[in-house]
Amino acid sequence: MDITTLSEKLNHTLSALRYGEKPKELYEPIRYIMALGGKRIRPLLVLLSAKMFDEDVEKALLPAAAVEVFHNFTLMHDDIMDKAPLRRGQQTVHEKWDANTAILSGDVMLVRAYELLLGVEQDKLALVLRLFSRTAAEVCEGQQLDMNFERREQVSIHEYIHMITLKTAVLLGFSLELGAILQGAPKSDAEHLKAFGDNVGIAFQLRDDLLDVYGDKDKFGKQVGGDILSDKKTFLMLTALEQANEQQRQTIISWRDKTDESIAEDKVKAVTEVYDQLNIRHQTEQQIDLYFQKAIHHLDAIQLPKERKSTIRGLALQLMERDS
Amino acid sequence: MDITTLSEKLNHTLSALRYGEKPKELYEPIRYIMALGGKRIRPLLVLLSAKMFDEDVEKALLPAAAVEVFHNFTLMHDDIMDKAPLRRGQQTVHEKWDANTAILSGDVMLVRAYELLLGVEQDKLALVLRLFSRTAAEVCEGQQLDMNFERREQVSIHEYIHMITLKTAVLLGFSLELGAILQGAPKSDAEHLKAFGDNVGIAFQLRDDLLDVYGDKDKFGKQVGGDILSDKKTFLMLTALEQANEQQRQTIISWRDKTDESIAEDKVKAVTEVYDQLNIRHQTEQQIDLYFQKAIHHLDAIQLPKERKSTIRGLALQLMERDS
Repeated sequence: MDITTLSEKLNHTLSALRYGEKPKELYEPIRYIMALGGKRIRPLLVLLSAKMFDEDVEKALLPAAAVEVFHNFTLMHDDIMDKAPLRRGQQTVHEKWDANTAILSGDVMLVRAYELLLGVEQDKLALVLRLFSRTAAEVCEGQQLDMNFERREQVSIHEYIHMITLKTAVLLGFSLELGAILQGAPKSDAEHLKAFGDNVGIAFQLRDDLLDVYGDKDKFGKQVGGDILSDKKTFLMLTALEQANEQQRQTIISWRDKTDESIAEDKVKAVTEVYDQLNIRHQTEQQIDLYFQKAIHHLDAIQLPKERKSTIRGLALQLMERDS
Repeated sequence: MDITTLSEKLNHTLSALRYGEKPKELYEPIRYIMALGGKRIRPLLVLLSAKMFDEDVEKALLPAAAVEVFHNFTLMHDDIMDKAPLRRGQQTVHEKWDANTAILSGDVMLVRAYELLLGVEQDKLALVLRLFSRTAAEVCEGQQLDMNFERREQVSIHEYIHMITLKTAVLLGFSLELGAILQGAPKSDAEHLKAFGDNVGIAFQLRDDLLDVYGDKDKFGKQVGGDILSDKKTFLMLTALEQANEQQRQTIISWRDKTDESIAEDKVKAVTEVYDQLNIRHQTEQQIDLYFQKAIHHLDAIQLPKERKSTIRGLALQLMERDS
């Protein structure tokens, strides 16, 4: 079964999910956010991981859906907290309805995510739910740290990596671990897949930070420099602040809190110049490579023939837009 | 083991719970709301139910705690939605911190509630989590209906009973069912306990509505007529509106949206007069009695000697402040 067939199976499972009917104010927002789409990368990782150990991935379909429902629950609640107007180019739930609706519909989504895991074989259920719960709490911790960092003057690179690990990476790691556990994979293989996913997740987020500044505008689909304009403490910004001399530091600081579109071009240009002086692009690429190599090291350690691991390896490379 | 010893065991379990440490912004509000106390009625029902079937209730302690953590999660999120300034006489979490904190800490509480159930014996785990999840979703549905009703002109008595069943009663029912299941009670006994709890829950909420108008001010601890002042659609109000003649209806409607303290006494007096004319007090007492008798009928149907059921029966009577 190739990746396209898996995707189709997954999409079929997702669109067949029933969250509830009444009251409609509670359930319509769930159907709305789930219909916004997205790359469905997390549930796909569950299935690809499962497929490494057993071609028959039927029993991984609902657990894969659980991960996607959980992910969208976090988006629904994060969007309230971040006051985000748009999600995937459409109105966010709290904008289209209101914050109360987004709170309560999100709560039910978390419940439904757990329910989708309850079909897991009895002897694996407690373990799966324990790991899922740990991951869920970590994702919340990551979101809290992200909000804390916005209000803080100083954030270290180490703290930043810890935050994106919790907020973004651990759910990718869990997705891969879940697929392995469902198919009865050896514990060490499941753990290596978890570590592979965590590290790919970190690399992926760093790459996101990088592309925001150095990405191809047409390819990336977002405004170049959006993070700079909104004073976001990304890996690039934190590295620059750590290494800047007094003048460079002053340049960055002088642009802070200026977020108006009219000065956007000047601000992005000025901060990018500092980045260029400090060779931030290259340093970030090195870090991405470091985490990616760590990830590959864990993939290599899995006790399976190379060809069984090639699809996941390929997907990771594709996420990184790399050739090898 | 008497009810006081059970309560002590329960309080010990609750105060020994560890929710997490970092970031403290996420976990402090959880410790705060859990320390506000309350009657702990739901976890106590879990233990009393468990004790009916087996004196050794050790294995029910963490599941009982799960129910209390879940209940406090719903309070934390409901208080945001209801813009409530106080909870048990103290600042609500969204007031003491902010709404984002209350959203995210609440989310983690729901995760922790699930985690506290994961020690349930393997062969019972899926069932327990399925019933818990169903109950959790129902409680959210009840809160949504409650919010809907605030904005609606017309609400039928039937719809109101449905709402309080979901919002309040089903968690009492689940608590009792949970205790029975954990001790391996026969399915029919667990189901009768669930029905007993649901009906006691409805009766209890109706009694709450009644006491708000006809309660002894000193005993009840709240301002008499608070529901009338805030135009709350209680059982009493909805029954009155259904049975009022045109003049009585106009009296009630003329006071609507007048919530200032300066007119409080006059408003409460005027609406209570209409209630008195329509004999609403007696009708509500009849309804409470109806649901209470339904509850007792289910308790009687449980296949255990009478003395095993006397503590729960006594507690229900106590909740109703009845002698028999």
